[in-house]
Amino acid sequence: MASSEDILLSAVLNLLSAFAFLVAFAILRLQPINDRVYFSKWYLKALRMPEPELIDHAGLDSAVYIRIYLLGLKIFVPIALLSFGVLMPVNWTGKSLERIEDLTFSTIDKLSISNVPPGSQRFWAHLVMAYIVTFWTCYVLYKEYHIITTMRLRFLASENRRPDQFTVLVRNVPPDPDESVSEHVEHFFCVNHPDHYLTHQVVYNANNLAKLVEKRKSYQNWLTYYQTKYERNPKIKPKTKTGFWGLRGKTVDAIEYYTAEIEKLSKEETIEREKVMSDPKTIVPAAFVSFKSRWGAAVCAQTQQSSNPTIWLTQWAPEPRDVYWDNLSIPFVELNVRKLIMAVAFFFLTFFFMIPIAFVQSLASIDGIENKLPVLRPLVQMEVVKSFIQGVLPGIILKIFLVFLPMILMAMSKIEGYTSLSSLDRRSATKYHFFLLVNVFLGSIITGAAFEQLQRFVEEPPSEIPKTVGVAIPLKATFFITYIMVDGWAGIAAEILRLVPLVVFHLKNTFLVKTDQDREQATDPGSLNFSISEPRIQLYFLLGLVYSVVTPILLPFIIVFFAFSYMVFRHQIINVYDQKYESGASFWPDVHRGILTGLVISQLLLLGLLSTKNVARSTPILIALPVLTIWFHIFCKGRYESAFVKFPLQDAMVKDTLERATEPNLNLKAYLKDAYVHPVFKGVELDRPIALDDEENNPLVATKRSRRNSKTHSEEGV
Amino acid sequence: MASSEDILLSAVLNLLSAFAFLVAFAILRLQPINDRVYFSKWYLKALRMPEPELIDHAGLDSAVYIRIYLLGLKIFVPIALLSFGVLMPVNWTGKSLERIEDLTFSTIDKLSISNVPPGSQRFWAHLVMAYIVTFWTCYVLYKEYHIITTMRLRFLASENRRPDQFTVLVRNVPPDPDESVSEHVEHFFCVNHPDHYLTHQVVYNANNLAKLVEKRKSYQNWLTYYQTKYERNPKIKPKTKTGFWGLRGKTVDAIEYYTAEIEKLSKEETIEREKVMSDPKTIVPAAFVSFKSRWGAAVCAQTQQSSNPTIWLTQWAPEPRDVYWDNLSIPFVELNVRKLIMAVAFFFLTFFFMIPIAFVQSLASIDGIENKLPVLRPLVQMEVVKSFIQGVLPGIILKIFLVFLPMILMAMSKIEGYTSLSSLDRRSATKYHFFLLVNVFLGSIITGAAFEQLQRFVEEPPSEIPKTVGVAIPLKATFFITYIMVDGWAGIAAEILRLVPLVVFHLKNTFLVKTDQDREQATDPGSLNFSISEPRIQLYFLLGLVYSVVTPILLPFIIVFFAFSYMVFRHQIINVYDQKYESGASFWPDVHRGILTGLVISQLLLLGLLSTKNVARSTPILIALPVLTIWFHIFCKGRYESAFVKFPLQDAMVKDTLERATEPNLNLKAYLKDAYVHPVFKGVELDRPIALDDEENNPLVATKRSRRNSKTHSEEGV
Repeated sequence: MASSEDILLSAVLNLLSAFAFLVAFAILRLQPINDRVYFSKWYLKALRMPEPELIDHAGLDSAVYIRIYLLGLKIFVPIALLSFGVLMPVNWTGKSLERIEDLTFSTIDKLSISNVPPGSQRFWAHLVMAYIVTFWTCYVLYKEYHIITTMRLRFLASENRRPDQFTVLVRNVPPDPDESVSEHVEHFFCVNHPDHYLTHQVVYNANNLAKLVEKRKSYQNWLTYYQTKYERNPKIKPKTKTGFWGLRGKTVDAIEYYTAEIEKLSKEETIEREKVMSDPKTIVPAAFVSFKSRWGAAVCAQTQQSSNPTIWLTQWAPEPRDVYWDNLSIPFVELNVRKLIMAVAFFFLTFFFMIPIAFVQSLASIDGIENKLPVLRPLVQMEVVKSFIQGVLPGIILKIFLVFLPMILMAMSKIEGYTSLSSLDRRSATKYHFFLLVNVFLGSIITGAAFEQLQRFVEEPPSEIPKTVGVAIPLKATFFITYIMVDGWAGIAAEILRLVPLVVFHLKNTFLVKTDQDREQATDPGSLNFSISEPRIQLYFLLGLVYSVVTPILLPFIIVFFAFSYMVFRHQIINVYDQKYESGASFWPDVHRGILTGLVISQLLLLGLLSTKNVARSTPILIALPVLTIWFHIFCKGRYESAFVKFPLQDAMVKDTLERATEPNLNLKAYLKDAYVHPVFKGVELDRPIALDDEENNPLVATKRSRRNSKTHSEEGV
Repeated sequence: MASSEDILLSAVLNLLSAFAFLVAFAILRLQPINDRVYFSKWYLKALRMPEPELIDHAGLDSAVYIRIYLLGLKIFVPIALLSFGVLMPVNWTGKSLERIEDLTFSTIDKLSISNVPPGSQRFWAHLVMAYIVTFWTCYVLYKEYHIITTMRLRFLASENRRPDQFTVLVRNVPPDPDESVSEHVEHFFCVNHPDHYLTHQVVYNANNLAKLVEKRKSYQNWLTYYQTKYERNPKIKPKTKTGFWGLRGKTVDAIEYYTAEIEKLSKEETIEREKVMSDPKTIVPAAFVSFKSRWGAAVCAQTQQSSNPTIWLTQWAPEPRDVYWDNLSIPFVELNVRKLIMAVAFFFLTFFFMIPIAFVQSLASIDGIENKLPVLRPLVQMEVVKSFIQGVLPGIILKIFLVFLPMILMAMSKIEGYTSLSSLDRRSATKYHFFLLVNVFLGSIITGAAFEQLQRFVEEPPSEIPKTVGVAIPLKATFFITYIMVDGWAGIAAEILRLVPLVVFHLKNTFLVKTDQDREQATDPGSLNFSISEPRIQLYFLLGLVYSVVTPILLPFIIVFFAFSYMVFRHQIINVYDQKYESGASFWPDVHRGILTGLVISQLLLLGLLSTKNVARSTPILIALPVLTIWFHIFCKGRYESAFVKFPLQDAMVKDTLERATEPNLNLKAYLKDAYVHPVFKGVELDRPIALDDEENNPLVATKRSRRNSKTHSEEGV
């Protein structure tokens, strides 16, 4: 077990590395050449959205996201103060460990619950503390849910007109032998919403076309690259090979080759475009139906249309940017089968992922390579290669899997058939959260692969599981302190450096950028990756809640993580990120549920731990906590969740009335005409729909920076 | 263990007792004097609803209810045939039991899975059978869900105009300092549903008034009783005592006393009635809001009105008969607290009910009585009394509790705050189902009180529980066969005799009935008691599914139960019962879920049983079954459940359009005016609202009897 000196050293090292990243960042961000990396959002705004009203640019999603870190501080700072004031002295003077001879223990152990002798009256302090932690966490969560619901409702109410306010996504349009999808949709809604139906937009299956466009763009990049190369060194005509990745096949003149290919692709694209627009088979049985009023859309989105609940499925249309076009046409039964298969696949992924990894690792061992590829034997026998294969390769293989894991989870969510990017993100986050819970949290406490744990859990009595895990909890405190420092502190500091975008931008800038528009395209502002970062925050909430009563010394490390992350992400959101969509904080119920899950886990583990400490009376006292917590969850769900799912008619009516009064001559049909056209039909200039401007006209918080910037803009007269 | 001869004897005895009941019934029902018990529905119809169109009188609830028994036959008859053809020979020739010396076993054991030696290849037959049972059950359930959904939709579509089609129940109307509840409701819906709002009806807190009316009715009965007594024997003036139940207090002239009391109560009633109607404090924050069209009501019922989801809660109004008036005004937070408390209370009731029972039993023991009431000592010492106390009293105390249990569960459901009788029934049925599952099914298999089982389940590994229970399953086959005969066969036969209504009617007829109206009131047609009988059917489904693979000899007993019950309840529904409300089979999703729960339990128990039989390969094969079953449940829920919860706009629009075409001059406001007035304001003659007539004009199935009857009616020209 690490001594407190080791922890101290580690803390210093990690703080230093975090500090080093920050220094590097401070230096690099001052270089004007790096502006496009560290201030990409400003550039993007300056390039595309010159409105002086642009005060705030983060959107509600980002604003609420950084509140999660703040929430961590709100929960853990008071708990830490109380624990340090009460529990630490109680534990320290417990003197249980000192009495056992021949036992080496660290200062951290002396400060943990392990130091209290079994059956001691001191455990009353821990019981009371468990109640305080539960009630305080629930109180803070309740307040936060209330605030965020209010923010969301105000945000939705203050929004300018947006196409999705009037539009409903209709899926599973039943086939009709006499009518096209478009006619069928129009007739159905004319009949069933006669006073409210306005227009609709059919959905084309433009996946092939999108692929062609993508391919042409990539060829265009290569052409630009070779042209630039040729301009800089006109003596050598650049060559390329026609085969796989330009590595095999016939050698040809690169510029001529790509010019010809692009021309060919452009023609194909035109043909495909015409085919998509004219062939009725490319129209999928889904449509975006728009209404004359928000009230009409709210009614249609929340009601069932047909007596068969698997056809004419209506839901609020996602924001146009947020639509995931590929999933709009999955039939009901197929959707259910996909969900079943993905649930089973996810179960196996979580509990048995180590088996294929171990298999690949065995292949990548010395013996494996020598058997499969005898050619490589001399190479493998070299000392450096050998030690690399033995020492580093297995770790790298695991690391590669973990890097790709979020992508695998996202792909699984896509197969499950969600129709918006925001729901895909939320769904992937839930999966990743569960994976981290099983493989990082439980996996670190009870060492062994997940499927071994699974076996153990099935074969052990339910009352034994919290005991087994609970008893191991205090022993793992030092491990998790180290984990928080490496993954939390240094990881977050690395985020601010944006190493990958930095390198990519400079590469692109050197080889591809010729015009300002090129430079704009080379800028990748990135965005909050909710599906990866939220589950990681949840892990820290879980650690904080679990250790708050057991080993409170862990709390300051958690608090530093939250405070540091809060600052970093606030900086990134203001200066760097450009969100791909705006969902109005619709992820909040998931965050809330995740934290409460952590709270229940912490209560059960404490129950298990105390039941081994001869505190018989503690069980009935502690069992009330998870019951109350689950009830609190149900209560909050009933109280607030509908604000994230439904849109109240009263609010819709207020906005409608207001709009009719202020803009009586509005041509809504023209406004909605192209809102939900597949992006591939919009061309490059129309990449981001009109909606965005509207939304960003409504500042949420006026920051100093944004005010300064907008002033600059107006002064410059941009 | 009972031998097969014992079982045979028991079967004969129970069949004989069932037969005896039926004979008694056949004799009794022919006596014209008993017509009002056995044909009460005909009388009621003849008295109240003389329309010749009265073809069917059962309603969808009853029709679907008897389909549950038919479903049992559909599931178990083919399974029984297959099991008898395949599994019984496989088990019979297993010869495992014969090899063990000194083991007594019955024929039933030889026919069960116990007779197959561990590790035998014969278990493949059981595995395949488990798959067949699962797929067949799911297939039949799917078909049935489809049929019943169609029936419900057709029923709703073919219904005549009913007030609840246009009406939404609005709860949690927020208080307004400037407006009364009625004004506030009107303004809110005029603003937010301007084109559709028609009228509304506030809800009065008439609980006190209802109590007074009830009391007056009871006094009226006593008065009639004494008057009849006096008329028959004018020599003796009847006397009564004024105190508790007429047993204590001053002796007075009964007729004078009750006449005076009734007059006093009538005055009080008038005052209370005026107070309720005039005092704004008696108006509860709830209202029945009616709309101009079914479409408008469907929209309002399915959408969220306010941004605060705890106020202006809308739901379909229950049928006027179905409203549970006392629960209309519970605030949101209180509702949640009530549900929490009831959940905890129900948990303790299920698992710890034996503790207070045992306590009461100990009080009612010889020692207990001697200690607490020494006065009774001489009495208790008598041999007859002693043996009664020792032998019968504990059983009677338990039996009394079990008789009162459904009432306790109903009271708990009422506290939970449901607003319609149908939902109260469904909710109580779910509770009772769980109670039977734990205390009858598991309690019979693993002997011991429920809390001992609970302790065992917590302390045993999850994989051990199906093993422990599964192994005991074949051993308990004879017990359950006896149980089915006593509880199922004889119990159902007793139902048809209607002993309690028979006695009550004749008592009333003798003492209270003077006019035809009195006789009508004395008629208690009774109704299907869904909250008690459905959970009992579920128990038989569970037994059938559990034993279909293990001991198929049990299946014929289940089949006889279903066939017999089907006939009895069909008779009762056609000739006797008069339903209190019509919910349009809204209980079906619960029935479906209950049977699938039984199926999953049977799969897990088979898994446990086979894992003790050295059939290692069976586990992965069998584990797929519960996964598939649960998925099937989710699939059916998505596919059909909304038909039982929501009302599709398309159907609403069709009915609205049709009505506008056929009855353009309908005065809907007048039609709806008094539909949702508290029954206490309607007086005796208006006891059953108009709605009923409408509903029963639409026959579901034309039975021979009903056709004959309607002909009789038309011939009679009634």
